[in-house]
Amino acid sequence: MTTETTETGEPDASVSPDPHARQAVRDLLDAVRAEGRTVLTAPEGKLITDAYGIATPAEGVAETADAAVALADRIGFPVVLKIVSPDISHKSDAGGVLVDVIDGAEVRKGFATVVANARAYDPEARIAGVQVQRMLPPGQEVIVGAVTDPTFGKVVAFGLGGVLVEVLKDITFRLAPATRADALSMLDGIGAAEVLRGVRGAPPVDREALAGQIVRVSRLVDDFPEIAEVDLNPVIATPTGAVVADVRIVLAGEAPRQRRRYSREAILSTMRRLMKPRAVAVIGASAERGKIGNSVMRNLIDGGFAGDIFPVHPRADDIEGRKAYRSVLDISAEVDVAVFAIPAKFVPAALEEVGRKGIPNAVLIPSGFAETGEVELQERVVAIAEEHGVRLLGPNIYGYYSTWQDLCATFCTPYDVKGGVALTSQSGGIGMAILGFARTTNTGVSAIVGLGNKSDLDEDDLLTYFGEDENTDCIAMHLEDLKDGRAFVEAARATVPRKPIVVLKAGRTALGARAAGSHTGALAGDDAVYDDILRQAGVVRAPGLADMLEYARALPVLPAPKGDNVVIITGAGGSGVLLSDAVVDNGLSLMTIPPDLDEAFRRFIPPFGAAGNPVDITGGEPPSTYEATIRLGLEDPRIHALVLGYWHTIVTPPMVFAELTARVVGEFRDRGITKPVVASLAGDTEVEAASAYLFERGVVAYPYTTEKPVAALGAKYQWARAAGLLPPQGSTPSG
Amino acid sequence: MTTETTETGEPDASVSPDPHARQAVRDLLDAVRAEGRTVLTAPEGKLITDAYGIATPAEGVAETADAAVALADRIGFPVVLKIVSPDISHKSDAGGVLVDVIDGAEVRKGFATVVANARAYDPEARIAGVQVQRMLPPGQEVIVGAVTDPTFGKVVAFGLGGVLVEVLKDITFRLAPATRADALSMLDGIGAAEVLRGVRGAPPVDREALAGQIVRVSRLVDDFPEIAEVDLNPVIATPTGAVVADVRIVLAGEAPRQRRRYSREAILSTMRRLMKPRAVAVIGASAERGKIGNSVMRNLIDGGFAGDIFPVHPRADDIEGRKAYRSVLDISAEVDVAVFAIPAKFVPAALEEVGRKGIPNAVLIPSGFAETGEVELQERVVAIAEEHGVRLLGPNIYGYYSTWQDLCATFCTPYDVKGGVALTSQSGGIGMAILGFARTTNTGVSAIVGLGNKSDLDEDDLLTYFGEDENTDCIAMHLEDLKDGRAFVEAARATVPRKPIVVLKAGRTALGARAAGSHTGALAGDDAVYDDILRQAGVVRAPGLADMLEYARALPVLPAPKGDNVVIITGAGGSGVLLSDAVVDNGLSLMTIPPDLDEAFRRFIPPFGAAGNPVDITGGEPPSTYEATIRLGLEDPRIHALVLGYWHTIVTPPMVFAELTARVVGEFRDRGITKPVVASLAGDTEVEAASAYLFERGVVAYPYTTEKPVAALGAKYQWARAAGLLPPQGSTPSG
Repeated sequence: MTTETTETGEPDASVSPDPHARQAVRDLLDAVRAEGRTVLTAPEGKLITDAYGIATPAEGVAETADAAVALADRIGFPVVLKIVSPDISHKSDAGGVLVDVIDGAEVRKGFATVVANARAYDPEARIAGVQVQRMLPPGQEVIVGAVTDPTFGKVVAFGLGGVLVEVLKDITFRLAPATRADALSMLDGIGAAEVLRGVRGAPPVDREALAGQIVRVSRLVDDFPEIAEVDLNPVIATPTGAVVADVRIVLAGEAPRQRRRYSREAILSTMRRLMKPRAVAVIGASAERGKIGNSVMRNLIDGGFAGDIFPVHPRADDIEGRKAYRSVLDISAEVDVAVFAIPAKFVPAALEEVGRKGIPNAVLIPSGFAETGEVELQERVVAIAEEHGVRLLGPNIYGYYSTWQDLCATFCTPYDVKGGVALTSQSGGIGMAILGFARTTNTGVSAIVGLGNKSDLDEDDLLTYFGEDENTDCIAMHLEDLKDGRAFVEAARATVPRKPIVVLKAGRTALGARAAGSHTGALAGDDAVYDDILRQAGVVRAPGLADMLEYARALPVLPAPKGDNVVIITGAGGSGVLLSDAVVDNGLSLMTIPPDLDEAFRRFIPPFGAAGNPVDITGGEPPSTYEATIRLGLEDPRIHALVLGYWHTIVTPPMVFAELTARVVGEFRDRGITKPVVASLAGDTEVEAASAYLFERGVVAYPYTTEKPVAALGAKYQWARAAGLLPPQGSTPSG
Repeated sequence: MTTETTETGEPDASVSPDPHARQAVRDLLDAVRAEGRTVLTAPEGKLITDAYGIATPAEGVAETADAAVALADRIGFPVVLKIVSPDISHKSDAGGVLVDVIDGAEVRKGFATVVANARAYDPEARIAGVQVQRMLPPGQEVIVGAVTDPTFGKVVAFGLGGVLVEVLKDITFRLAPATRADALSMLDGIGAAEVLRGVRGAPPVDREALAGQIVRVSRLVDDFPEIAEVDLNPVIATPTGAVVADVRIVLAGEAPRQRRRYSREAILSTMRRLMKPRAVAVIGASAERGKIGNSVMRNLIDGGFAGDIFPVHPRADDIEGRKAYRSVLDISAEVDVAVFAIPAKFVPAALEEVGRKGIPNAVLIPSGFAETGEVELQERVVAIAEEHGVRLLGPNIYGYYSTWQDLCATFCTPYDVKGGVALTSQSGGIGMAILGFARTTNTGVSAIVGLGNKSDLDEDDLLTYFGEDENTDCIAMHLEDLKDGRAFVEAARATVPRKPIVVLKAGRTALGARAAGSHTGALAGDDAVYDDILRQAGVVRAPGLADMLEYARALPVLPAPKGDNVVIITGAGGSGVLLSDAVVDNGLSLMTIPPDLDEAFRRFIPPFGAAGNPVDITGGEPPSTYEATIRLGLEDPRIHALVLGYWHTIVTPPMVFAELTARVVGEFRDRGITKPVVASLAGDTEVEAASAYLFERGVVAYPYTTEKPVAALGAKYQWARAAGLLPPQGSTPSG
């Protein structure tokens, strides 16, 4: 007896499997799990790929050599023979695979060989037969797979096949289910993408067929969460299709725990009360200098918070000039936020009272919870909060700032430069670095929030709020993990069209060895999944702490670009070369200057200066040359962004350059012409004051570096593309 | 008639070809050039690979189908057939190649096919016969090649074969001739190096055989400079050898011009007089404020130069209080340096006088030479200088500083912080950025030199001098090109064992399309050759201007590490994670802490703190915890470098941390225990002063960044390895 199928086609990728096929998969998976197995056999895999319309070669299973010969005759030669055994997972290792079997006699001999090899490999193995499969035509080997990521859940993977993908880790990931557009973007998302487009005269592969397979695999794991990993490896991609040569499907031991989720409206209503409170209670307020409960009180008062401040203390009558209460229950007014400044062990009882009082937000400054091993205490606190509908910030945090409310609910020092950046940090130390950097650079801030242990409120809650907040133009987040990657992606996608999100993901290089049952699984370690999924969510990823801080400072200052054409105008040829390097490094496009524009620039610069791009006005030029060329750059609608390279000379001193640049940019802004302008200032120390002057007036300027201003511009472009304000990179011709 | 060879072996790679074989190559190349050809045929290539002992498969050329069959019978099946024609360079394109020809009948048919295809492709082509070649066993395809780089001359290349190497540009370069050690390092120098070591159970390739081929190719192009490009592509590497499947050799049109070279002693003797002059003449000295000739005079005087200053002016009697001369010829004293501050057109006449006066150095500040298209004027100046033995600095420069001589021969402003860094820049703008950065960071400098057009004095001259200069501990160079890459490498190799060289190579990403006749040539574009050769020369390459400046500031401050074990001690867990990321990013090794050391650390930190590495002392700790753990880190001889993460708290304020750290590090230094210590300070703005305090006391410290301190440490390690102070990376186990 033989089972047999012919080569499956490639139906429309938008069609889901019909209910019958789905039920067949359901029944199969249930049967496999009932047997206590987690790895599917090849015929089981075939049933699933057929159900999902994933093209596989014609094949069948034969129980005898005669049946195998007959089967091979019908399928057509050459064929591949593979042992079928529920007990043998790595068929090649068992000598259970023969390729390029060219005629009936060879099939007969081969049948005996693979069965004998399998018996020798594992005498106990149950042998169900030999799979006879049509050998695939030569083509580009690729791998399509899916894994279950601890942060993001089901993700689909794509890379070139073979040894190189494993060594070079040239693989890309997307959330499952993936759309056709996602899948097509994956084909462009690998380093060796060019190979798929056809190099050295080779024809391109069938992109739609490949994308269809990616979509189908992503649907499969989304439909059946108990499928932990899928490996279609290799898939043979040819100009006319993509056929899977080998399927490997692994089931999970158990389903992951679902995190509690809140509705968008529920999140917003408590977050609004947290960030714009009318009344704050300080539990553990203290009159004693040096105590956290005293610092918090004084910062609230000194920061100028205009709402009510209620100190809570078991004995005191008043603290820092405010009437004190024994318990929050004694406060008659409505309270929006309770800030905790008491030791961890007293938190549960006090939180119980906060809950009974109906205070929606508890800010847990104290440490001594999960981070010191007190996991149970933290779980108790979370349970109390959930019971009463109190949202928790922390524990183990410095507190939070809501600048536009003059609210400084921290034990640090007040911060009063109001502006458009909301910053969050998982770690207190990084929070302090944010504060110091913001202060020294005079960065305008809407909020700084410590997240600490994230027992409840998380980056996605904050994103949801800051996305709506009219005072916030840009959100920058330091994080070490995401408790719910999907909720974060959802919140990010809702926010990015309106404002940029910068993320510093710490722990990028952690050598997180991960037990994996498939090639895809083995490749999904390190930082690869985070990187692809965050990019897909439209987040600007900062490579380091200093970059995150600089992007946070610069992005709200720069207007969004309206096109790809970047022009460098420089007084120093040397800066021009370095700025060009930086433009390329940051994925920006140096505009090819059309002849009329080139001529227009040439009118202002010395004959030996270079037009083209960079426009090199040469070093000895007066302010009028800088001004005329910058004006031209802002005026011409074909130019979308300016990178300025200033060279300190006696003829054009730093503040003269800064003043004229700020004036011209401001003048155009008043006329409604906004283009991002960044500047690199090379010179003696006066360029520091000139850079600060420019930054305050909307030109992102730095001394002693050609990299930073262009990196900031690059971040702005990255956001503009993610927000849909610009077409994806490379889709419009420059010039 | 057939010519025939058997498969060549792999003789000792240290043996050069014998004189007869060399003469045969000489004769062949002469004959090819006499015919006006530049591309060699396969049999010609075979003669050359045989002469150099490069293994190729057994083969021969047959003029008739019968001869081809007989030849194939002797060689053994399967064979490959290839058309032989001096007029057909791309055989595959002409349909002139048939592979896997399995018997005599197929050979007969194939002979006719390739000849017919070649005739169809080019009816005019002369056909010399058909090459019959033993078909190679399967193995790893690699590419070994050589190209003639405009900067470095002959370089040898190695990469994996096939389409991927071209798409991913995974290829590495070394100067030719390459040593066996060079060649072996190339096998580890590609991204996919692991493939050669055997992955997924594949056996490793024969590394010695591959290295031997690289060495032989490098000798070949070194012996015969008229060979412009060599492609051995593919070479089939197996566990037992490496055999070349196809050879392509291209000759150059003409030999490149040799640059004038000076001996080390000649360079040093004039450079010493340039950098430590007793008398300086200023040609074009002026009394008029704002003029360059006045700025130079005043800077020399105000800078405090103790030697003689002779202003030269056609009419003035004295300038800035010094007696003026009509011509340098009127000065009776010996003069070491003539600084030119006159318009370009007057330079030749004045230089003539400088030459006649026997002044060894002319510093040409004026612009208006090659950079503005006045190439001829510059060539005239160079000719005058060569005639008189005058070395030229510039033209088109800001001048130069020799700080320890209080010498400021520039039109900028004096700089007086003496120290160990010598900085050079090709561009004036970058020179000004160097000056401003050095001043604002109080960086100790030995020299700042502008190189401008580099009509004569070049980076290699300066390296030669600074390598010897007792005041210079570190050399940092901004450059856009090297006029003589080999001289630079030579000077760098002589210098690196004594002091680090940091290079910022601008123009990295220039899309320098280069006409190439081979795959290797096409891959040698961009920045790849510079990057590999500079690394090979032991140079620390700075990724950007800001990095170059920071490395220049930090490297002289840090002592050299004596081993690989880096330990992070941090108050902020969040900084610890980011510092770990930075350690991995910079190729450093986080020490695996042995149990006894772990226990020793644990004695000082709270029970919930984490020992291991990072050592997390937690945020609330007093100064004594920082001090005890830093002491332990310095004391234990198994630890070689410390990375400190400070978190600003009330308990341990920034200056308290800075003071204790500087004190402890100084105490150990006095005891003779020197280890590099770097610090990241997270906190409010007070951490800026604390960082400056630490930097001045030998601890490389930065506020608001976890990346910069570790990058500086990484640069120091990179130098220490290049200088031979540490074994190459990965060769010693950590812990």
